[in-house]
Amino acid sequence: MRIALDAMGSDRGPAEIVAGAALAVRETDLQVTLLGDEQVVQPILEKEKVAHLIDLVPTTQVITMNDTPIDAVRKKKDSSIVIAFDLLKKGKVDAVVSAGNSGAVMAAAIKYLGRLKNISRPGIASVFPTLKGPVVVMDVGANVDCRPNHLFQFGIMASAFYQIMFGSEKPRVGLLSIGEEGSKGNALVKSTYTLFQDSALNFIGNVEGRDTFQGNVDVIVCDGFVGNVCLKLSEGLAEAVQSMLRDEIAKTFKAKMGYYLARKAFSNFKKRVDYAEYGGAPLLGFNGAGVICHGRSNKLAIKNALHVADELSRNKVHDHILRLLKDNNPDAPAVKDEAAVAEGVA
Amino acid sequence: MRIALDAMGSDRGPAEIVAGAALAVRETDLQVTLLGDEQVVQPILEKEKVAHLIDLVPTTQVITMNDTPIDAVRKKKDSSIVIAFDLLKKGKVDAVVSAGNSGAVMAAAIKYLGRLKNISRPGIASVFPTLKGPVVVMDVGANVDCRPNHLFQFGIMASAFYQIMFGSEKPRVGLLSIGEEGSKGNALVKSTYTLFQDSALNFIGNVEGRDTFQGNVDVIVCDGFVGNVCLKLSEGLAEAVQSMLRDEIAKTFKAKMGYYLARKAFSNFKKRVDYAEYGGAPLLGFNGAGVICHGRSNKLAIKNALHVADELSRNKVHDHILRLLKDNNPDAPAVKDEAAVAEGVA
Repeated sequence: MRIALDAMGSDRGPAEIVAGAALAVRETDLQVTLLGDEQVVQPILEKEKVAHLIDLVPTTQVITMNDTPIDAVRKKKDSSIVIAFDLLKKGKVDAVVSAGNSGAVMAAAIKYLGRLKNISRPGIASVFPTLKGPVVVMDVGANVDCRPNHLFQFGIMASAFYQIMFGSEKPRVGLLSIGEEGSKGNALVKSTYTLFQDSALNFIGNVEGRDTFQGNVDVIVCDGFVGNVCLKLSEGLAEAVQSMLRDEIAKTFKAKMGYYLARKAFSNFKKRVDYAEYGGAPLLGFNGAGVICHGRSNKLAIKNALHVADELSRNKVHDHILRLLKDNNPDAPAVKDEAAVAEGVA
Repeated sequence: MRIALDAMGSDRGPAEIVAGAALAVRETDLQVTLLGDEQVVQPILEKEKVAHLIDLVPTTQVITMNDTPIDAVRKKKDSSIVIAFDLLKKGKVDAVVSAGNSGAVMAAAIKYLGRLKNISRPGIASVFPTLKGPVVVMDVGANVDCRPNHLFQFGIMASAFYQIMFGSEKPRVGLLSIGEEGSKGNALVKSTYTLFQDSALNFIGNVEGRDTFQGNVDVIVCDGFVGNVCLKLSEGLAEAVQSMLRDEIAKTFKAKMGYYLARKAFSNFKKRVDYAEYGGAPLLGFNGAGVICHGRSNKLAIKNALHVADELSRNKVHDHILRLLKDNNPDAPAVKDEAAVAEGVA
């Protein structure tokens, strides 16, 4: 498998991205093609001593966080993001990984890959840590205003992803709502409930916000507005909790001593909740595999994202999705050509 | 001030509620009227040695968590919740506090108190701890499908509540979305943005999930579906984080020792994030003051909820709301008599 990796997208700069790629190629037989400014990236490749292991495709433009996604993809034809998806479209790579402007990544995927047949709205899934195993939440920001069928298809796509990544035959699918009964929720969720009920998916009913971290559900379905709010709320709360604990511990010598003794427990805990362990958010529903990384991704996150991209492509996640779609809705009429919405991507 | 307190609503049973009332009447000059089963509550009052300080109004019915809110309020006329709101309506008490079925509390408030003039959708606010001060989020579950004007009015009501409870003249109001720019968000949020922009409120723009716990905003506005998901997600994550840390610490003797030394820091931290410190969620937008407590409320939470109810009533939160409403929308036509929705309350 050959993965195209956008070297220009990280908040930490290209060196962190290249370091992640170096980790990946040293540990596995993955082939990585970096895209970015040759003057910047080539010296880092040499410093990391992986210039002979990693290809570099020079690009001259960069899409920044401040660029408007659709405009940027249209105008910056020689940007690392656009060239990466163009290579994927041409079959020269098997997947794309980027920690850059996620709206632009979505827009490039829409433009260069297109939607899978009969998928109305491709989207972004995200893996959350829980008390037991990981849970996959979809959508987390690509589709902010949804209809019931969109949510139903998120359930199908996220189930296919869960099957591939975590090897479960029948992932438990929950619909994010504000009460367990099917009668609880907003109008969108109530209408979606019956679609899941009538499906062949392993639907366990509505789940609530507090179920997210219990590990009793494998796939959580929500619209991209709710999913994005949840993703950022969780990040913010996890940071705030750590910051408050640090504050309290710093107040007395005794507590600092205690922290010192327990520091291994804290670092194990941190590892358990670290997004870097999960390696980015897969794009699902496109004719091609892509992974979006957090802008703050460190080299470990980049390495794991490359691994996720590899799994997506190697295991043909699209075929899984299409099969699940067929199993669940064999008589569905073809979806009309409805523009997928990248505007709302945060 | 005299507060009616539902003795029958807690997951922990009436003893915890009575203990909370006992704390309150011993520490302050608050007058509490308990409502509940005389055979159960009277012996607890005597055991707590507060029978001479607290009135008991015997009721014969109990609305349980499994009851359908509107039906229960209609049929169980002699339940503690219904009688509490009836007393408030008749002016015999100044506020109501209940840890019972929150949907039924909302339904009783709608039926017995009614909406404040020109408020289309009364709702429930909730106080979240942050790195700096508290933040008030509204709505957290009463109104799951909203229009822009509903969200705008949540901003007004929550601002009035914030002014009263935390003494700030111009609370900073943020609209919960998935990007800072006014162009980011779902259709509802984008339409609401301009209403806030044109208002006299101290609107600071969109805020994201991760801002919730930073303490840089005082009032966060969202629909009741999103707010309820956020509330329960935060609870669940805070519990999961504590549980994971406990697991890791229990693994080695050294870490256990460390925890022992740092235990004061942990308990201070716990106090900082404990919902019990904030004393329940105020009902806002009704002709009367009410506070809904978490079903798991301990006596401290009940005591603090009585305090919040006292402040709401003593400082006439309704007058504040009406004044803010007039300041922000002086030419608004009277709101039509639109039924407030209690169905979705979780």
